[in-house]
Parts: sequence; structure tokens; C-alpha cells
Amino acid sequence: MPLTDPDRLFPVEPALRGLARELYRSVADLPIVSPHGHCDPRWFADNARFPNPAELFVIPDHYVFRMLVSQGVPMDALGVPRTDGGAVETDPRAIWRLFARHIHLFRGTPSALWLDHSFEHVFGLDRPLSEATADAYYDHIDACLAEDDFRPRALFDRFGIEVLATTEGALDDLAAHRAIRASGWSGRVVTTYRPDAVVDPEFEGFRANVARLGEMTGEDTTSWTGYLDAHRARRAYFRDFGATATDHGHPTARTENLPPQEAAALLGKVLSGDFTPEEADAFRGQMLTEMARMSLEDGMTMQIHPGSRRNHHAGVFASHGRDKGFDIPGRTDYVGALKPMLDAVGMEPGLTIILFTLDETVYGRELAPLAGVYPALRLGPPWWFFDSAEGIRRFREITTETCGFYNTVGFNDDTRAFCSIPARHDVARRTDCAYLATLVATGRLGENAAHEVAQDLTYRLAKQAYRL
Amino acid sequence: MPLTDPDRLFPVEPALRGLARELYRSVADLPIVSPHGHCDPRWFADNARFPNPAELFVIPDHYVFRMLVSQGVPMDALGVPRTDGGAVETDPRAIWRLFARHIHLFRGTPSALWLDHSFEHVFGLDRPLSEATADAYYDHIDACLAEDDFRPRALFDRFGIEVLATTEGALDDLAAHRAIRASGWSGRVVTTYRPDAVVDPEFEGFRANVARLGEMTGEDTTSWTGYLDAHRARRAYFRDFGATATDHGHPTARTENLPPQEAAALLGKVLSGDFTPEEADAFRGQMLTEMARMSLEDGMTMQIHPGSRRNHHAGVFASHGRDKGFDIPGRTDYVGALKPMLDAVGMEPGLTIILFTLDETVYGRELAPLAGVYPALRLGPPWWFFDSAEGIRRFREITTETCGFYNTVGFNDDTRAFCSIPARHDVARRTDCAYLATLVATGRLGENAAHEVAQDLTYRLAKQAYRL
Amino acid sequence: MPLTDPDRLFPVEPALRGLARELYRSVADLPIVSPHGHCDPRWFADNARFPNPAELFVIPDHYVFRMLVSQGVPMDALGVPRTDGGAVETDPRAIWRLFARHIHLFRGTPSALWLDHSFEHVFGLDRPLSEATADAYYDHIDACLAEDDFRPRALFDRFGIEVLATTEGALDDLAAHRAIRASGWSGRVVTTYRPDAVVDPEFEGFRANVARLGEMTGEDTTSWTGYLDAHRARRAYFRDFGATATDHGHPTARTENLPPQEAAALLGKVLSGDFTPEEADAFRGQMLTEMARMSLEDGMTMQIHPGSRRNHHAGVFASHGRDKGFDIPGRTDYVGALKPMLDAVGMEPGLTIILFTLDETVYGRELAPLAGVYPALRLGPPWWFFDSAEGIRRFREITTETCGFYNTVGFNDDTRAFCSIPARHDVARRTDCAYLATLVATGRLGENAAHEVAQDLTYRLAKQAYRL
Repeated sequence: MPLTDPDRLFPVEPALRGLARELYRSVADLPIVSPHGHCDPRWFADNARFPNPAELFVIPDHYVFRMLVSQGVPMDALGVPRTDGGAVETDPRAIWRLFARHIHLFRGTPSALWLDHSFEHVFGLDRPLSEATADAYYDHIDACLAEDDFRPRALFDRFGIEVLATTEGALDDLAAHRAIRASGWSGRVVTTYRPDAVVDPEFEGFRANVARLGEMTGEDTTSWTGYLDAHRARRAYFRDFGATATDHGHPTARTENLPPQEAAALLGKVLSGDFTPEEADAFRGQMLTEMARMSLEDGMTMQIHPGSRRNHHAGVFASHGRDKGFDIPGRTDYVGALKPMLDAVGMEPGLTIILFTLDETVYGRELAPLAGVYPALRLGPPWWFFDSAEGIRRFREITTETCGFYNTVGFNDDTRAFCSIPARHDVARRTDCAYLATLVATGRLGENAAHEVAQDLTYRLAKQAYRL
Repeated sequence: MPLTDPDRLFPVEPALRGLARELYRSVADLPIVSPHGHCDPRWFADNARFPNPAELFVIPDHYVFRMLVSQGVPMDALGVPRTDGGAVETDPRAIWRLFARHIHLFRGTPSALWLDHSFEHVFGLDRPLSEATADAYYDHIDACLAEDDFRPRALFDRFGIEVLATTEGALDDLAAHRAIRASGWSGRVVTTYRPDAVVDPEFEGFRANVARLGEMTGEDTTSWTGYLDAHRARRAYFRDFGATATDHGHPTARTENLPPQEAAALLGKVLSGDFTPEEADAFRGQMLTEMARMSLEDGMTMQIHPGSRRNHHAGVFASHGRDKGFDIPGRTDYVGALKPMLDAVGMEPGLTIILFTLDETVYGRELAPLAGVYPALRLGPPWWFFDSAEGIRRFREITTETCGFYNTVGFNDDTRAFCSIPARHDVARRTDCAYLATLVATGRLGENAAHEVAQDLTYRLAKQAYRL
Repeated sequence: MPLTDPDRLFPVEPALRGLARELYRSVADLPIVSPHGHCDPRWFADNARFPNPAELFVIPDHYVFRMLVSQGVPMDALGVPRTDGGAVETDPRAIWRLFARHIHLFRGTPSALWLDHSFEHVFGLDRPLSEATADAYYDHIDACLAEDDFRPRALFDRFGIEVLATTEGALDDLAAHRAIRASGWSGRVVTTYRPDAVVDPEFEGFRANVARLGEMTGEDTTSWTGYLDAHRARRAYFRDFGATATDHGHPTARTENLPPQEAAALLGKVLSGDFTPEEADAFRGQMLTEMARMSLEDGMTMQIHPGSRRNHHAGVFASHGRDKGFDIPGRTDYVGALKPMLDAVGMEPGLTIILFTLDETVYGRELAPLAGVYPALRLGPPWWFFDSAEGIRRFREITTETCGFYNTVGFNDDTRAFCSIPARHDVARRTDCAYLATLVATGRLGENAAHEVAQDLTYRLAKQAYRL
């Protein structure tokens, strides 16, 4: 018996299931376009083997370890690295066993689907992971990882990835991307320009970061025009390594459109280190509008994903640092927040700004109405906690009626869990096909049109929105 | 093959579909009660032919043109009139072709359902609209429009409209309604009192509007009692033309219940032109309570639909003016906002205040709990972006458990797209029947009761809530 | 024909229905664990007969009478007691008839399901309640109530209640619980510590309440340490009567973690009677963190259910007092509000804090992400207006993907309507089984796992979370 049901995520009613299956069949094997994610480009530069099952599936995946933490398993026992120098478990097999002992916690979650999909389709396993099978799993996966067929480039090919975007900070030298290119490997791995560390005055080391930005570009980043030109230079550098997009993860969606002199003064203020939270927020907001203007110049697609309250627990942040599963969504306003930027550039048909959210209440009230009228706006797929069967269903049900399919941009896997990429795209394809089948069966969409939309959602829209 | 599926919007499971179909059959042909909408009363006064397909389906319908705009089609190319004197496309056939070329954008939207319903059931078309069929469509519809059977009154009869409410500003002379009455035509078209221009200090020309209100009524509208009496006079005048309701479209649901002297002082302030946004908001809030009190006197039903951030793009507002698809919903509070008015009149069983929303998050949290206890409150149907199969389903699923069916008021089409009226009521009837069938099939409602509720939702509740 | 469909609330598709039915069968007869509710402990202490049908079903149940009030039935005519001394209807038969005449208002509501379940399964009735059957119903139920089998303890046994928690204020002498214990009856009825009256400075009589708290415990409650020790003493007293949990119903979820001296000063301020709403709010917030710390000491589970805007209508509050169906939910923030408490104690695996909400928008955005990472947090079941088939379905669909099943705590009936307890637990069991069946049928959960989860949701998780 396989771990994964061949009809998973399809509607249960037989006629509907038949329709969904047929739609799915036509897109199941399309190449994967992954325009937004967090894979490490060194995997593809070095093509070294993945070290062990725990480092592949548990330690780097905060979806996985946060669930165990929520039930009282200490992060240290899971080998999650500390930034304060404290000791953590280093035996990967011990970590794997602990993980296996708690696998029931994932019942009903997308992680369960992704894991089973990887276990079966990547590693050929067919019995469920449990405390009893933990060692057998470990040994089997570890043995696979030692084979050349399980090195990053081989998996990249086997997964059918046509293009994969990674995300690098503005100050990254893109050495890994340079190495990929130098290697002559044919896989298409591109970077994405993520300037948070040099546009967010509250980012750790902001002043030093901006100074470094100046050094890297030869611009005087203490002057407003020099600072903007430094961004232009880095964006061009990123484009040399395939970047077609920028990525902006702000606490809010606030934008500003200040006169240049006020913006220059604000830069001076935030660089002085003596600024208020309000000034930091205004500066971030101004920079979104500046980035949109640069996108108009250089054609890069802009991604905005506001709303995460990062590092929620002070103690965990102190001991373990960022990205440890303690980023919690908060209420997010878009309608008022985006107005300055949209007044400035929202009617530009040549510009693409993709909006993400962690606050589902804005799908129907704000995002779909905005994307349904502004030429520059598109809706990113459900993301983070909502990258799931129910999350995708809600997204389609709530947004489609207002902004249609063509103001959305296909799927993003947004992951650093490499083996989950095919699984995640598969969930999106199945869920979209289930939704399309429902539209067909309820007289809301012709069958031919549904097939066309299925192709669009799986492949064309992502290529087009990200200019890939 | 018809454009519309006879079983559209029904559940797919065969037994459930059978139940829904049976319920629908019993209400499909009931007369249309349209208690809230934006048809032009001159259509029925003059009974002139509709000029051409573009002016019937594209130019006045912001649901339609905003979708094309969102994909980069300029409003000018669609013939949407400008207020700044700029030139726009005037060839209706060119506009129609542009529309047809983009028809795929509407896949999965209610507009697609409404358009196909109109094309098939009003104009007898049976091939889908596309770039290829655009000219044939244009010629066919245009030829139809030249026939007497397609003039407004003939369509009104053919659509089975028992009563249609239009909406006119407080300063409207109701000449069109007078002409309808003078014509001896038997169709029942009534007006609705919409005083935004004379109660909102931020409305263009507010002071002049209030002065004009004084002239029209012979009241001194610079005094608080004169101003209120002027409203009373206009309400009575509107009632002479059949009005049974008032309509209030404020940015928020704020209400106030100030002592008369403070209210009088506030009127002075806002009429002086020297007032703060807060004072404007307080004045609008006070006027909602005053209107509710007048409704207690004269029996008019009151409609409040807050929450639209109007004219979101400054440039489009400057070039094209109001109502161009750039009204975006925002977060809306009701619980705190309505308290002053509800403290004053909420327990009055003789009063009917219908609440609408553009913020679905309030259905379960605020609106259903409020309507489920206050005798004066009723919930308006899902509205604007949510006047759709999924929107209506969510509304019923979320509100019914808390406030039942009998604190809702049936359907409103709220449209200026005349041909879509039967299509919209049909969508509501089908969706309500699908919901009722689900309740029956899951043991939550008896079949006889479901039939009774279907009649109530389609016909009785609207007549009763609007006293029509 | 029975009043209740044996397959009620199961999916309609036959295969899915079969699965749901099978899962339900395995949990339908499990004992009821009722860890949070508002039954009167005197029922079980005195074991007197329930006076009459109106006092059993109508007068104490604000779900029921608020629906009639919403349609213009005066509360007085329903016998709802006034606090201002005004007269109300005292004839229970008249009240019952009025109720029966309006029974159609409950169509589609959970109240209808609960009532029919009680009528059929508790009283053996098999014709629907209506105006025509009102008297027969009254006579039948009244005759039953005269029998010993319908006294509170007999019903408690018949309902299969393993343990029932009531809720008492911190100043309650727990005489009823003492009497239950003294009686030697074997039924397990425990209390819950609810300190709102002595931690909320805006509660009626707060100062006197705190003084009384000092008298009862021999502590100086005007000093911060004495005040905290008084709470410790009362918690211990409540534990003597079986309490395993505390319950906190604040207007917001705000928490604070002030240094002791600031907290002491704040206590002085709020006891002085001269304090601002902000200070009252900060004090309540500080007390949540103090209560969490005491829970760490004494092992009591903590329940927080913020967000109700109590006593919404000023007039009804003046005439009828609290708990009259005029408590309306409002927007509620958790992510920022809980941070101080979570920074202090959120990572403690030995602590259990159960979060409830009346604002469904936080399920996916805030509550599931928080409960999915903090060891101390669990999600309470859908509550109050959302204790219903659709409410429970939405809860599972939105939360499970992010925090799984094991960060939830089973079902609470939260009711003072004794006869509805089996009905409410039955609705939860059916709805959870329907959800689990859907996961199984769509390849998201194995059938064996689903059976285990069904047991957990019905029985084990509540026992564990409440340490019962």
C-alpha cells in the first residue's frame, strides 16, 4: 500500500473526482516553476550529498520542529542550532527517533502530506514512519543520500524543476550563484534581490549594512541619491545572476511617497541611529515605493509580503535567533497602507507587484478588490501557514469571484525543505484542479476553459508574472 | 448547447442536487422584488431603446470594465467617460471587440454567469462570446435592441419584476419618477431616499447642497431644527413617489447620539466649512441616529452600508471621477460604532434598520450577533463583491446559526446593469436552495420547512423588510 | 418519524457518510467530559425537580430568548427576570406558548438541533414543537419533570456524564459543592476558579469584592503580596472542591508583566477607585500573567476567553442586568496582547493555558500559529456563537493544518441549559467525525489514525488538558 493516495485532495463525489483527476492528469507532469523560495544555492554549486535524514527533514524545517516544540519537546533535543553557544543534540539518529516518536502530531497537516510524499516518491518508502520504523527509515534514507542520484543536482533534474529562484540579501556576493554558473551545469537557478537588511532601520546592523552597501557599489550611501543608486547597482548585479524579482518582508504593508528632500532627511535620521519606530516604519514604506519605481526602470517583479510579527518569544530569539518558527502573523491593512505607492505607480501596466498575506481576512475585503482593478497588482499564492489544501481552497473560493484567475500568479513553494518542493507543487496542482472541477460541475466554467486555466495556474502565470 | 447549465450552482452529489432542484423549481418563477438598486428611472420614463451593446454591457458596469483595467486595458479604450474632458473611445463596436477579446478574464467570476445568463435568456444567444463571435454578438444584440420587445418597459415585464426601487439623492426632483407615474404605465418603480450629499460634510459641494435643501423645502437649513425638518419634508416627498426606504453609504458605521444643542453646534461647524475630519465623521454619525428617529416617525426602512474606501486612486478620481471601480472595502467595526444609535432606538420593534457590509469578517463576529438580538436590526444580503455564489454561501453558513433566516431580508441586486437583474436573482435563488438542500440532507431542517424558507428568502422577507 | 435524523451532520456523499457514521459509532457512547460550563451546582446538591418547561428551556437560555427578542418579542413576556423590579410574565405555560409560536425562527440554528435532541432523547417526544403542539409538549414535559428519573442527578447519570465542571466566582463559599460532597452522591461535579470580580477593577463592587477576598483569606489584600496570597488561598480552597482549572473572561487578551513594584502601585491605584480605563486594563493584563504563574505553582489549567463586549444595550442592562444575550463579540488581538505573558511563561511545558475566541478571524492568523509553537498554549473549542456544526467545521478546517489536533482540547459545552449537554456533545462528535471522514476520503489521514483521533477529540484531550 502506498503512503500517498493517488486520488488525494480530490473531491469525494465520483463524478467530481473524475473531473478533477482528468484535469490533474493534464498538469501533473508539467515542469516545476519555483519563482520564490529559500533553497541554499550552495547545494547546487557544490552538489555535495545531504548529510543525514535529520539535517534534511527536521533541523532546517521550522514547520516540522515547531510542532514538536508546541508539545513540549525542547528545541535543543531536536538539534536546532543555538546562537548563544549553548549545546544541542548532535546525534542525527537520536533526533530522527524523537521526530518519529511524535509523528502523530502532524495528522491532518500539510507537513504530513509533504513528508509522506517525499518518503514515498523521493525515497521509495512504503510503510508509515513511526517509532517502530524510525531506524529502518533512517538507515534507508541515509543510504540513499550516499548515492549520486540523491545529490542536489540529480534531485533537481528528477523533480522536473525548470527554474528555481533562491533569495539572497542585498549584500550577498552571490558566490554560490557564480559557482553554479562557472560549473557549466545546465540547471536554471536564479537569485532574488532581498534588501531587508539595508532598507529596514530596525534590522540588526542596519547602519553597518548600509555602509557595506556603499563599499560594494562605490556609492555614497549616506546621500539619498547615492543610496538609491547603490540599490540600482545591486539590482543590476543580481540580474546578472538571473534575478527577475525583488522580495520585501516588512512588518506592515505601509508605503510612503515623500518628496525627495523629506526622504533624504529621513535617510539621514535612520542612519544616525537616533530614530523612532514611526520613522523606521516610514522609511521602510518609502523604500517600497522607491523599489517599485526602480522596478519600472529595470523590469524586475516586486514581491511584498507583510504582516509577520517576527521572533515572538524574546527568550527563544535570544537563545536561538531568527527563523525558529516564532514568526506569528498579525492583522494587516493593505487598502490604506498601499495607497501612496499605488497613487504613484499602481496604474502602470508594465509593472508587476505581487502581494502576499498572512492575514486571510484581507483576501476578499482588500487584496482581490485591489488586484481586480490595479494593473500593477497581482496576488501571490497562499503562503506560509496557508500553503495547504484548505488554505489554497479558501484562497480560490474567496478571490476568484472578485479578481479572477488572471490576477494571480500560480504557485510558490517558498521553502528551504528541498525534498518537499515536488510535494508542495503537487498539493497546489491537485487543489486547484479540485476547485476547477467544482466550477465545471456546477456550471461555472466550461471544461475546455478549465483545462486551459489548469495549465495557466500550474505553469504559464508564474512564468509570466516573474518574467522567467 | 446552452450557455448556462440548467443545474448550475446546485450541489454535485445527486441526492443533494435533486433536493436543490426541487426547492429551486418552487421559487424559480416567483416575481422579482428588487428593493435596492441603481437603475436609471429615465429608462422607464422614456422607454427609449438602449443605444448599443457596449453601452448596455460594458461602459456602465464597473464590475466589467475594472477587470479589463486590472490587466492593463486603458479605461479610455473602453469608452468609460472622463470628467476631465479627455477623449475616450466612442466606437461601440471597437469597445465591444476589446471586451470580447478579454472575456477569459471573467472565468470563475459572477460576471461570467450574469453575462452568459443575459446573452442566452435575454438575447437568445447560444455560442460563447469570444474574439471570433464578437461581431456576430454585436450585430445580434444591436438588432434586438432596435425591437420594441427590448425596450426597458418590455424587459421589465419580461423579467417578471413586481417592484423595482431606484436610488435618488435628496436633492433630486424625481422628474423621472413623476414622468413614470404620469405615463400611466403599470410597472411599479419606486425611489429611495439617499441623503449622502446633504449629510456628509466631506461630500463635494456639501454647503451648497444643504443650502439647496433649504430652498427646496422652505426650511432654514442653517438651524438644526430647520435642517431636520427639511429632511422630513424631502422624505415625505420621496414617499409620494413610492419610497419606503432610505439608503446611507458612509465610510464607517459610526453613530452618535448627541444632545440637541451639541448637534446644532456641530451643524454650524460643518456648515462653516472649517471643520476637522473627526467632526465630519461625528456629524455623519449623528445623522444616522436622526434618520433612525425619523424612520420611527414615518415608517421608512433604513439601509446602512458602510466601509467602502471610495476613489482609491487619486489619479483616476481626478481624470474619471466617482464610481469607476476604485472603491475598495476596508475593515469595518459595527459593535462599537452602532452602540449610540442602538442605545437610542435599537429595541424598537417598529423600526427596521438593514445593515450591509463589505467586510465579511463581521458576519459572524458582529452582524449576526447584533441582528440576533436587536429587534430593529436586520442583515442585508451579501453585497457588491460578495453578491455571488460563494459570497452568498459564506453569508448563509456564517450568519444562519446565530441569527437564523428571519433576521435577513432576502436578496438585493444593487445594480445599474439592467439585464443582469434576472441573472442575479437567479444566482441568489439557486445558491439559497443549494444551502437549504444541504440543511435538509444533513438533518438540520425539515423538507417542508425548507420549502417555506425558500419562499421567504425569495419573496416574502424582502416585501416585509422594505414594506413593499 | 424521529425529530432527529440518525445521520444528521454527516456528509451527504454516501461513501463519506459511511465513513463518518463508522467513526461516530466508535465515540457516540463515550462518557461526557464537560470541563467548562455554567450549570448550577445546587441542582446536584438539592436534586430538586426542575420547576417547569419554561424554566428549563426558555428563561435561563439566552440563545433561545434572544432570538425571540430579535423579532420583537418583549423579554418581559418571556419571563426573563428584571433587576429593576419591573413585572414580568410569571405563567410558565404562557411563556411556553409564546416560545412555541416562534419556533420557526430557529430554523437552521444549533438551538433547533439542541432542542429537538432534548425533546426526543430526554423527553421521548416525536412530533415537532409548534403552536399546535405547545400545550401537549408542556404537559408532557411537566409530567416528566415530576418523576424522579428527571431530577438532576438521574439525568446526570442518564446523560453519561463522567465529570462536570461548574464555574464559581472567587468569593463563592462553594456551599453547593460542599453539599454535593456531603451527600455522598457519586456524581463528579467540580468547581472552577473564576476571579473576574476581584481582578477586574471595572467589575461592579470591585473594591468591596477585594476587601471581602481579604476577609475570607485573612490576607491584607491592599498589599500586592497579600492580594496575590489571597488568590493562592482561594485557588487552594477551590482545588479542595475538585477545581483543576481557572477561567478568565476579559474584554481583551491583554497581558502585562510589570515589575512587582509597579504592579503593587497599580493595585493601589485601582483600589483607590481613582483610575483610568487604561489602568484597569493594565491591571487585568497583569493579573493574567500572575494567574499563569500561580498555575505553574499549583498545576491548575488556565482558560482565557477574551473579546466579548458585554451588556451592549444600556437600557437592557439597566432593566435586566448581565447575561441577557446582549454580549456581542468584537475584534480581538492575541499576538501582541499575549506577548508579555508568553515571554514570561509561554515556553513552560508544565503549564496549560487554553485560549478561546469569539473572533473567528484569529483562528488561522493568530491562534493556530501561536498554539502550534508555544508549549504552554492550547486552543479551546469553538465557543458561544460558534458552538455549532458550521462553527466547528470552520475551526477544524482552519486550525488543524497549522497546529494539528493535539494542540486542541476536545469539546466544552459551556452551557447553563442542562438538557442540551448531551445534544451539544453529540453535535461536536458528529461534526468532528464528518471532518475526519473527509480527511480519510481525501487521502489526508489513515483510517486507523482517524479512529484514534476521534477518541482523542471526544475524550482523551479534554481529560488531559484539564487534568481531570
